[in-house]
Amino acid sequence: MKQERWVYPFGKGHREHTSEDKQLLGGKGAGLATMSHIGLPVPPGFTVAVPACAHVLAHNGQWPAGLEKQVKKAVEQLESDSKLHFGDSENPLLVSVRSGAAVSMPGMLETVLNLGLNDTTVQGLISETHDSRFAWDCYRRFVQMYSTVVCGLSKEVFERRLTEARRSAGVTIDSELPASALQELCGAFQTEYRNLTGNVFPQDPWEQLHGAIDAVFRSWNAEKSVTYRRVERLVGLKGTAVNVQQMVFGNVDDNSGTGVCFTRDPSTGANEFYGELLINAQGEDVVAGIRTPLPLISLRDKMPEVYDQLLAVRAILETHYGEMQDLEFTVERGQLFILQCRSGKRTPTAAFRIAVEQATKPLITREDAKRLTKRKLLSAREAAAASKPVITREQAVRRIKAVDIERLFYPVISPQVSQAEFRERRLAKGINAVPGAAAGAVAFSAHEAERRAAKGEAVILVRPETSPEDVGGMQAAQGILTQIGGKTSHAAVVARGWGKCCIVGCTELEVDEHKRRMKLGGREFGEGDTITLDGSTGEIYAGALPLSRPEPPPQYQTIMQWVDEMRFLRVRANADTPEDARKAIEMGAEGIGLCRTEHMFFATHERQLAIQEMIVADDATQRGAALAKLLPYQREDFIGIFEAMAGRPVTIRLIDPPLHEFLPRTPEQVDRLAKASGRTPAQIERRSSQLHETNPMLGHRGCRLCLTYPEILDMQVRAIIEAAIACQRRGVEVLPEIMIPLTIDGRELQILVDRTRAVAEGVIRAARTKLKYLVGTMIETPRAAILADKLAESAEFFSFGTNDLTQLALGLSRDDAGRFLPEYLDQAQHAIFADDPFQSLDVAGVGALVSHACASGRNTRKKLKLGICGEHGGDPATVRFCHDVGLDYVSCSPYRVPIARLAAAQAALAERKKK
Amino acid sequence: MKQERWVYPFGKGHREHTSEDKQLLGGKGAGLATMSHIGLPVPPGFTVAVPACAHVLAHNGQWPAGLEKQVKKAVEQLESDSKLHFGDSENPLLVSVRSGAAVSMPGMLETVLNLGLNDTTVQGLISETHDSRFAWDCYRRFVQMYSTVVCGLSKEVFERRLTEARRSAGVTIDSELPASALQELCGAFQTEYRNLTGNVFPQDPWEQLHGAIDAVFRSWNAEKSVTYRRVERLVGLKGTAVNVQQMVFGNVDDNSGTGVCFTRDPSTGANEFYGELLINAQGEDVVAGIRTPLPLISLRDKMPEVYDQLLAVRAILETHYGEMQDLEFTVERGQLFILQCRSGKRTPTAAFRIAVEQATKPLITREDAKRLTKRKLLSAREAAAASKPVITREQAVRRIKAVDIERLFYPVISPQVSQAEFRERRLAKGINAVPGAAAGAVAFSAHEAERRAAKGEAVILVRPETSPEDVGGMQAAQGILTQIGGKTSHAAVVARGWGKCCIVGCTELEVDEHKRRMKLGGREFGEGDTITLDGSTGEIYAGALPLSRPEPPPQYQTIMQWVDEMRFLRVRANADTPEDARKAIEMGAEGIGLCRTEHMFFATHERQLAIQEMIVADDATQRGAALAKLLPYQREDFIGIFEAMAGRPVTIRLIDPPLHEFLPRTPEQVDRLAKASGRTPAQIERRSSQLHETNPMLGHRGCRLCLTYPEILDMQVRAIIEAAIACQRRGVEVLPEIMIPLTIDGRELQILVDRTRAVAEGVIRAARTKLKYLVGTMIETPRAAILADKLAESAEFFSFGTNDLTQLALGLSRDDAGRFLPEYLDQAQHAIFADDPFQSLDVAGVGALVSHACASGRNTRKKLKLGICGEHGGDPATVRFCHDVGLDYVSCSPYRVPIARLAAAQAALAERKKK
Repeated sequence: MKQERWVYPFGKGHREHTSEDKQLLGGKGAGLATMSHIGLPVPPGFTVAVPACAHVLAHNGQWPAGLEKQVKKAVEQLESDSKLHFGDSENPLLVSVRSGAAVSMPGMLETVLNLGLNDTTVQGLISETHDSRFAWDCYRRFVQMYSTVVCGLSKEVFERRLTEARRSAGVTIDSELPASALQELCGAFQTEYRNLTGNVFPQDPWEQLHGAIDAVFRSWNAEKSVTYRRVERLVGLKGTAVNVQQMVFGNVDDNSGTGVCFTRDPSTGANEFYGELLINAQGEDVVAGIRTPLPLISLRDKMPEVYDQLLAVRAILETHYGEMQDLEFTVERGQLFILQCRSGKRTPTAAFRIAVEQATKPLITREDAKRLTKRKLLSAREAAAASKPVITREQAVRRIKAVDIERLFYPVISPQVSQAEFRERRLAKGINAVPGAAAGAVAFSAHEAERRAAKGEAVILVRPETSPEDVGGMQAAQGILTQIGGKTSHAAVVARGWGKCCIVGCTELEVDEHKRRMKLGGREFGEGDTITLDGSTGEIYAGALPLSRPEPPPQYQTIMQWVDEMRFLRVRANADTPEDARKAIEMGAEGIGLCRTEHMFFATHERQLAIQEMIVADDATQRGAALAKLLPYQREDFIGIFEAMAGRPVTIRLIDPPLHEFLPRTPEQVDRLAKASGRTPAQIERRSSQLHETNPMLGHRGCRLCLTYPEILDMQVRAIIEAAIACQRRGVEVLPEIMIPLTIDGRELQILVDRTRAVAEGVIRAARTKLKYLVGTMIETPRAAILADKLAESAEFFSFGTNDLTQLALGLSRDDAGRFLPEYLDQAQHAIFADDPFQSLDVAGVGALVSHACASGRNTRKKLKLGICGEHGGDPATVRFCHDVGLDYVSCSPYRVPIARLAAAQAALAERKKK
Repeated sequence: MKQERWVYPFGKGHREHTSEDKQLLGGKGAGLATMSHIGLPVPPGFTVAVPACAHVLAHNGQWPAGLEKQVKKAVEQLESDSKLHFGDSENPLLVSVRSGAAVSMPGMLETVLNLGLNDTTVQGLISETHDSRFAWDCYRRFVQMYSTVVCGLSKEVFERRLTEARRSAGVTIDSELPASALQELCGAFQTEYRNLTGNVFPQDPWEQLHGAIDAVFRSWNAEKSVTYRRVERLVGLKGTAVNVQQMVFGNVDDNSGTGVCFTRDPSTGANEFYGELLINAQGEDVVAGIRTPLPLISLRDKMPEVYDQLLAVRAILETHYGEMQDLEFTVERGQLFILQCRSGKRTPTAAFRIAVEQATKPLITREDAKRLTKRKLLSAREAAAASKPVITREQAVRRIKAVDIERLFYPVISPQVSQAEFRERRLAKGINAVPGAAAGAVAFSAHEAERRAAKGEAVILVRPETSPEDVGGMQAAQGILTQIGGKTSHAAVVARGWGKCCIVGCTELEVDEHKRRMKLGGREFGEGDTITLDGSTGEIYAGALPLSRPEPPPQYQTIMQWVDEMRFLRVRANADTPEDARKAIEMGAEGIGLCRTEHMFFATHERQLAIQEMIVADDATQRGAALAKLLPYQREDFIGIFEAMAGRPVTIRLIDPPLHEFLPRTPEQVDRLAKASGRTPAQIERRSSQLHETNPMLGHRGCRLCLTYPEILDMQVRAIIEAAIACQRRGVEVLPEIMIPLTIDGRELQILVDRTRAVAEGVIRAARTKLKYLVGTMIETPRAAILADKLAESAEFFSFGTNDLTQLALGLSRDDAGRFLPEYLDQAQHAIFADDPFQSLDVAGVGALVSHACASGRNTRKKLKLGICGEHGGDPATVRFCHDVGLDYVSCSPYRVPIARLAAAQAALAERKKK
């Protein structure tokens, strides 16, 4: 049997191109391997690969066969590469032992530095560095680190000893301790070690190394690591790699130093070599923040050779990766070492600027290229690569993330607010339904929200949950906070449509609507008290924190132009009003994929009354009279939308929600309706209770309403067609698509399509004109998806209503799932779903229904138009699925349109790559 | 182009075997064609086939090309066959024109008799019959019938003239009118005709015939016919055939007569020639009921030749059809004519006896066979056929209908009750949820029902709707009536399990629970007032009508034995208690397919309290303590069930309903729980409202409960396994199948199966024994069906929960569908579904999910056990589907087990036939 390979050396001519596979070597290990491969100066060492960690964790700490032998061989190689030796009293080999998972988990996993030091080798270090204080300090730190990290001893014991040492030396900080005090501490630490463990502190570097590697392995399953992965939803990681690397010291003289740099400015994205460093210092000193670092440019004067070397490294690395890099380097006695490289984090603004400039401009100037080549720091090939764009436009587009766009358009809490202030003001966390931040005075009713907003106050509407009647107050508020509901609850869906900050399902919140008070985070708030919502994280803070709103950089437009050139999938918006429609166009929508007519019914009291009168009508005649009142309102709204969309397709869904949603709730509203409809309040109440449903989601709604009350369909179709004709007469192009919701059967759809066409043709004939329009259906029940071939006989288009389709396929009410869906998403515990199926389409289940419906629908009608209009339409993974399954368009809330455009382009690029 | 054939002659040697296709010739036409073909004496004539009617109705009354020509040719043939002539003054041809659809629609379609009479031919009839009274009466009737039926004139006018004629003749009934009066009436009727239509009464027999055929066609779409077809749910009929046939007269002398007979006794099923007749009379006279008919046997003395002829006809017809026949015959001057034959209606008792005797015994005795052969009334072949069983056992089994079994086991309203009494007492109609009848005193609460029943009273429980808390009262009542809910509402499902009469969704019912009164059919009832329910029809009657319960005949057992030999599909019952289990075995169940553990929680107050304490528990410890109280109850119940089932498999479903279903509803119940659990009523209320769900059907239930509260699963699995071990120790074989409900995902199921097995193995290990058990899942969400391959990785069996699967696939709550589902089932209006999808599985939609899940589940696990446990399991069409799709068993309520057994055998036979 071939021995499995666990260990991969790097540095000192190890140009063997092992792999850039982060799953194998971890992020740090892959970076070291790559830098080693492309000839950058990396301190030599080796990586113990991730599978070794996985094996050890799965086998109760036991190392796999061959690992020990491979590590020993790698150390021997390292000794010969470095001309240093483990345990040598003159030229001791010292190493760092660092974790490195495939995904960065800052501060979660363990590190041991200066490993190899013992009572003998410390002398070697002294003679080598001529700095006994330095050497004893290294040893002191190593003993302390090893005891706590590897052996799990309490940090306190060592801190106490340190404090004592400072006191007796009469100094206040560790760096002022003299060598003798540090030497004494080394002894004292080892005594503590013996007392606590019953063993002598290990002097054998081999034993030290074995222990340190095990400690890194173990740290993978430490509670904080597990929690971190759960919170960050890091799935599919098997463990960490361990990087063992020769120590280099930036603190041995003034020709040494250490620093961090970015190949471009991570804040603005400018093409400037950006970073900072400390002369005669170690990495820890940079982190500790005791000394103020110098800007990177100062290196040009202090160590011009090293600066040019770094410039070359910058050029080589960014051209190699085609990505802005974040580097750590150390200079030891004038010799440059790169310790780490990785893709650098950047602001959204920088993300766009970097992507566009990388795709259109050279990284370095012609002069720099010439100079560096002349100094043999760059090869001719490397210089040429750095003198032209480092990536293609396609790569630039692939590079942009949805969150980069998202963060461009939403206000955020000002970066000025300190972590301490955040901590102090934090009240609770809810579900982050709509990103962005909002601050303002609390209002507990829609009415109060409107009243305060009218006075110019910034308002946060706080409700147990919202209903269509709250829409006015929601509109008036800066942000919305609810106690109940998930990411697709009424509050979330409506707020998302407006791009308005919204936190839902905050179970800690206790609202007393009547007393107009709420309890949150152990504090009580009344109407007018201020709070701040961070809709991106779901955090709620006391008081009004300052907000800022980033400005999209010019490169945003460039990227979106490229995006639009690359994608095939069209992107529409869900929009119910002319204002929404205008916003949609502004965000780049190519049509409206879902216009919910019922939202119009709530716009004014008159409209509400008219729809309510329709519902309490005793017969078709009374119903007809009430509907006649609604007709002009609907027609007017449709005219506004058609005008805003100027010829782009507009999909209008006929009435969908169960009628009881429209009925009055408060006694005053009941009285008003009673008066308006000439009935007693008791009659109104009776009608309300008649309409009550056990499971309204599965009740008398959607096209079922049009089957039982065809007058509603007649009125709505008439309003749509009359509006379209009116626009056409004014020279505005129109393309209405009438959508019949919640169908379950081909015959059912046929009946309603026939009726729709009959009404439409009647209106068109009467107006003596011509009009192009489509009639189609929403696929939102599993049965509709299954029998799509039959539905396509009368439908000219399908639009997948994936919200309801998900609810039905999974038997999961989005309103009620808050109690148990978290268990399904909990990656550490059950890991049943990788993503919330209401956020990102459940491809295996719901996706199977969608793709079946697409195929069988198109089998019946080749030119069947296919789209999606659920909340999923703005989710990048779902957009990718929609592209793959061959939809014509996706439709989402206006604010997510740019994200969907980007995702559509990325899907097209991914497909191109596959081919 | 070949001319389409519209007309098919019969009688007088027309042995051309056209077709027995009722869709083409209608029922009557097919019978006449067949009788004609096998040489029985049929008055000659011809059938205008159904497609002609369909064409005429679709083309605004216009006859299709060729029809007129074919009718004329058929009349010419008839003239030459009968030696009579249309319009002939000496030998006039008179015909009847009768409707005849594929399915009998008694009294709905039109008939015209004596067509061909006019002022000339009436003389011919006089000279032929030597009976001018008879001839003028025929003419008078014809004019009257033609005027009203064909021309739509009001009947009143003619009745008025008749009344005048009786008055002036000084007689009281029409038959006493002398010839002269009748002749005058013929004139008077024709005058009225001219006055009302402006035309002369048509004298041309051709014109008369054309008009009469049109009138029959038209009657297909008359309002009463359309309503009849809707009510009887007659689907797929295209129109009626028209039968034109030479008139024969049973009232010309004492050697004439008319009668009706059955080839066996339709009431008892006895192998006796059964029927009645009138001498010297016409068919109308039998129907009118003025004269008392004689028993058929009297013909043996009065016209022995004719009697033997009839005996031969009986033998030939029943052996030809292999089915008991219902005949109409007329004797004209000693000559026998058969006017009609069809399968005879029979009582359920008769159905079993006839089927068994047809399959095991000869129809006629050896003596009769010999005698009839000798007299050349039977051929040797015909005699041989009638002397052995006329059908096979397979045919006997195919013949039995589900309703025959159903009506054997449920009480019915006594046949003694007159139609008049029914009419008078009828109050309203609800949905016929569970068949059978019940009569008793009204109780408006479960408690009151129990109280009255305890005193020995028969009680009808009347509720707006029922909930699990009503179960005690439902059990105590004879019948259940609810205002709300459909055939699968709580009331219906529970009542069906017990075979208890139940009417639901009676929208006319107004119940005032507090005042303990109800309004129904315009009357008011208080507690203790009596009503009668007919669960088979949904009718509700005032007062207590007498009931009777039929006794299954011995042939029932014979048929069921044959059934069990023929079927492959196993039949289990849904049963929740030892009593149910025993009933199930009695009805022939081979196991329990669904034991709902939660029903046990309602059995006593102690149990209810324990489950409620579990729900209000603050943590796992409190929950554990409450569950520990439930464990012994559950174990005890399972022991009872295992003992009753004696080694047959028992599928036990873990807890399924949302927890709020168990919580107290009334203030008293809240108080009781508060006391028992050491909480305040307010705390209980708060917990209740926390658990409230918008769509409970899609909420926190099924296996989601076991994911969030695994302690529940632990307790239930422990109870099952401990009960099984206890039984096994007592020598009772057990085969528990633990079923995890409402799964949506393979990983979810894996987690729960692992936990189930861990608990079970722990209990088995601790008991130092061995036990065979299965763990599987219920497929009741579309996603589970779609991803069945994944579920089969951990499930050893699937049971399709088609109730929920239907609700989810269609997005249709069975509790709420009452408002609109009728529109979907209305065959006359929309005809979207042929059957209620909650009664008979929706094969196209839900069936597609089931068959996909079967195939992909078995693809993963070859020996996967498959069953169905929804309400559909007892529906014959669904059982057929289950057989075809390869399920191992169906499970239904105990009372439907025999029906499912029958349907399983019929499915196997149908498959055999196909092969």
